[in-house]
Amino acid sequence: MSDMTSQAAAPRSPGRPRSSRADEAIIEATLDLLAEGAKIDTLSIEAIASRAGVGKATIYRRWPGKDALLRDALAILKGTPPTPIGRSVREDLVLLLGAVGRNTDPRSEKIMSCLLPEVNRNQDRYELYQGVVEPRRARVREVLERGVRNGELRTDLDIELALALLTGPMLIQRVLRWHPELDDDVLAERVVDGVLEGIRAR
Amino acid sequence: MSDMTSQAAAPRSPGRPRSSRADEAIIEATLDLLAEGAKIDTLSIEAIASRAGVGKATIYRRWPGKDALLRDALAILKGTPPTPIGRSVREDLVLLLGAVGRNTDPRSEKIMSCLLPEVNRNQDRYELYQGVVEPRRARVREVLERGVRNGELRTDLDIELALALLTGPMLIQRVLRWHPELDDDVLAERVVDGVLEGIRAR
Repeated sequence: MSDMTSQAAAPRSPGRPRSSRADEAIIEATLDLLAEGAKIDTLSIEAIASRAGVGKATIYRRWPGKDALLRDALAILKGTPPTPIGRSVREDLVLLLGAVGRNTDPRSEKIMSCLLPEVNRNQDRYELYQGVVEPRRARVREVLERGVRNGELRTDLDIELALALLTGPMLIQRVLRWHPELDDDVLAERVVDGVLEGIRAR
Repeated sequence: MSDMTSQAAAPRSPGRPRSSRADEAIIEATLDLLAEGAKIDTLSIEAIASRAGVGKATIYRRWPGKDALLRDALAILKGTPPTPIGRSVREDLVLLLGAVGRNTDPRSEKIMSCLLPEVNRNQDRYELYQGVVEPRRARVREVLERGVRNGELRTDLDIELALALLTGPMLIQRVLRWHPELDDDVLAERVVDGVLEGIRAR
C-alpha cells in the first residue's frame, strides 16, 4: 500500500534530512489543519492521516501520539534560529533577537496566536510552547555565556534574567505591537544596546 | 420604569465615583459576559442590557456604542496602576512593574487572553488594547522623565525604548511564564536592576 500523495512533494524542511516524504506530508497536514482553525484539543490523528493521504498506522510508526507530532510540527513551523557569527556578543545578539517573533511561515501567526492564550491554563500546551522557546533561549544563552567568559559581559551576569531582558521587549513588540511608536526595523539593535548599556546615569 | 436589579448592588468600582448604580450593572454585565466566553465581535448591546437588567436606551444614554462601553469596561477591569512614591526612580519602577500583568479581577485573565490574539489582526481590538496599555505606560514614563531631570537616569535616555525594556520581561513572564525558572516574587526588582545597570562589562 502506498501512503504517498502529491502533498508529499512539498519542499524538504531544512534540518530534518531523515524525514521521509510521508513524514513531511503528515507534518504539513498537521500545520495546515491548525492554521485553518482546527483546535489542538480536538484535532485527531484520523483527521491528520486523512489530510495527509496516509493511514493512521503510518503516523503511529513515527510518533507515539499527538503531542509528539505537534512538538515536531511546531519545531518545523518555527524553523531554526540564526547561527551566531562569533565576532562580538553585540553582533550575535542583534542577529538572534532580530529573529524573535519573526514568522517566516505564514501559518505561524495564526497557529501561535491560538496556542499562546492556552499556555498558562494547560500544562500540555505549556510544554508544547516551551519546546518551541527553549531551543531559541539556548542559542542566546550560549552567546551570553561566551560574553561572560571573554570579558565582554559582566562577570556577575545573571544569564537567565538577561535572556528575559533581551527577549521580552522584542516579543511584546512583534506579537502585540505593544508600543505604537517603536520602529521595528532597528528594534533589535536598540534593545541590545539598551540592555548592554543600562539606563542609569554614570 | 426601573432599570435596577440586585446586580447593581455590586461594590462600587474605585476611581469611578460618577457612576450610577445602573452604569455599574452595565459594566459588570459586559465583563461577566466576556469572561463567560462571549466574543467581542458578536456581543450585543441587547445581551448586555438583558444581563444588566436595564433597557438598551439606558446604555445608549451613557455610551455612544459598544466600543466606548468596552473601553470603559476594560479600564475598570484592569483597575488603576499604583501611585509612585517619589523617593527614588528605582523604588517607583519596582512598584509600577510589580503590577504589570497582575490581575486582581479574576475575569481579567480570561478576557485579556481572548483580546490579545486579536490585537494584531483587528484595528478596533488594537485600539481597545492600547486604551488599556497607554495609561500604564504613561505612569512609568513620568517616573523615567523625572529620573532624567533629577540625574538618576542617563541624560540621553530613550524613554520610549526604556518603557519596552522594563515592561517586556514582566509581561512575557506574567502572561506566558516564558522562562520556567525565573522567580516571580522578585522579578520586578531584578528586571529594574538589570535594566538600570546593563549587562556589559565595565
